[in-house]
Amino acid sequence: MLPKDNVKALLFDVFGTVVDWRGSCIRELTSFGNARGLSHDWAKFADDWRDLYQPGMEEVRTGRREWTILDVLHRESLLKLLNTYGIRGLGEHDIQHLVTIWHRLDPWPDAVEGLTRLKSRYIIGTLSNGNIGLMARMAKRAGLPWDVILGAEPARAYKPTPQAYQRNAEMLNLEPKEVMLVAAHNGDLTAAAKVGLRTAFVYRKDEYGPRKPADKADGQSWDITVDSFNGVADAMGCTRLE
Amino acid sequence: MLPKDNVKALLFDVFGTVVDWRGSCIRELTSFGNARGLSHDWAKFADDWRDLYQPGMEEVRTGRREWTILDVLHRESLLKLLNTYGIRGLGEHDIQHLVTIWHRLDPWPDAVEGLTRLKSRYIIGTLSNGNIGLMARMAKRAGLPWDVILGAEPARAYKPTPQAYQRNAEMLNLEPKEVMLVAAHNGDLTAAAKVGLRTAFVYRKDEYGPRKPADKADGQSWDITVDSFNGVADAMGCTRLE
Repeated sequence: MLPKDNVKALLFDVFGTVVDWRGSCIRELTSFGNARGLSHDWAKFADDWRDLYQPGMEEVRTGRREWTILDVLHRESLLKLLNTYGIRGLGEHDIQHLVTIWHRLDPWPDAVEGLTRLKSRYIIGTLSNGNIGLMARMAKRAGLPWDVILGAEPARAYKPTPQAYQRNAEMLNLEPKEVMLVAAHNGDLTAAAKVGLRTAFVYRKDEYGPRKPADKADGQSWDITVDSFNGVADAMGCTRLE
Repeated sequence: MLPKDNVKALLFDVFGTVVDWRGSCIRELTSFGNARGLSHDWAKFADDWRDLYQPGMEEVRTGRREWTILDVLHRESLLKLLNTYGIRGLGEHDIQHLVTIWHRLDPWPDAVEGLTRLKSRYIIGTLSNGNIGLMARMAKRAGLPWDVILGAEPARAYKPTPQAYQRNAEMLNLEPKEVMLVAAHNGDLTAAAKVGLRTAFVYRKDEYGPRKPADKADGQSWDITVDSFNGVADAMGCTRLE
């Protein structure tokens, strides 16, 4: 059976899949640095910040730490990095401005059009480790037309734990097989497939810039493998926009 | 300080405030009855069904019963009523069709326009006792342009417990005073105000049909008191649609 015959909702990984976190972080950090006469390798700062993402969540996933939203983890890792880079004396307003860079990420050029097409036929929503407040503000700024903001926070479980996928399907009154995860990362899709979700891989070649190659779907057997959200919409039988 | 200077998000009670649950239920029940040659007082059936709403949630609120979503409570109260009315022999497909009447409620005529205006300036979302799957399907069918579907299910607390309001503000990274509850019911607004939310009362004169009068704001001191969502949008400084 084709996925489009069974799937009722498409849920999306967001960082890297819907939005260009790296390019947006570099843009915001550079502009912040310029305004304050701070000169650093902001691309490296963005990469270093992202590298602290998994260890922060791992404390919560293992149960060593109680449920904590991503905005708080982002703030903690930022403070660590500012110290490492020797950036001192920032006030609360600046810290808050930097933490909320993750609320102001730009979508990949095909994202809004692809989502709009998919929304005409399916429930579309987020299944991100980002918290609800973050996702809601990002969506408003970027015009992402979500039907629902779901993900780690309402599930109280970070991906890639099985609960993160299962509870999100449940919150939509759906069986796992009626939900498709769309993601640019094989690890995310592997975990989703393991609990029965359908899978769409989107190749985002520029996610990591020149630093390292993006995930490819070579050798994987995802239900859909494409390089844009319009590709997902085509595969799912959605009509083109006028 | 005017509410519009401080408020970042407007969250809405849904049943009765955004949608005409009674008129929609009667319409669906009548059409179901006609198709099956069942003749009953469907207006009374709708009212009786709604009367079982609070007792069902009260079991959960008091902690006598573990967290249970509204779709499940609606199914249980429906089965009770079908028995009372002597309606027998319905299959699972029919039961599911009837339970999901609550997914197919029509909005009041001003709702979509008012929400669209408010969305241009504020985060808008649901703060209903209805579960996420119910709210998502209702919104898609009715064109309700929510930024976020929040409410009792992600908070795991039914209104009017304080947690139902507090946790929803928290999930948006907001202080209670930065959130306004919009509702047609004084009890809901009283509970929200008690934990610091701002309040907008919308008079929905036809909510209960001829059965009983709708709530009025007489003698109450809500931040806003109006009789339509356009009235809320006017009071909150939103421009009119072209």
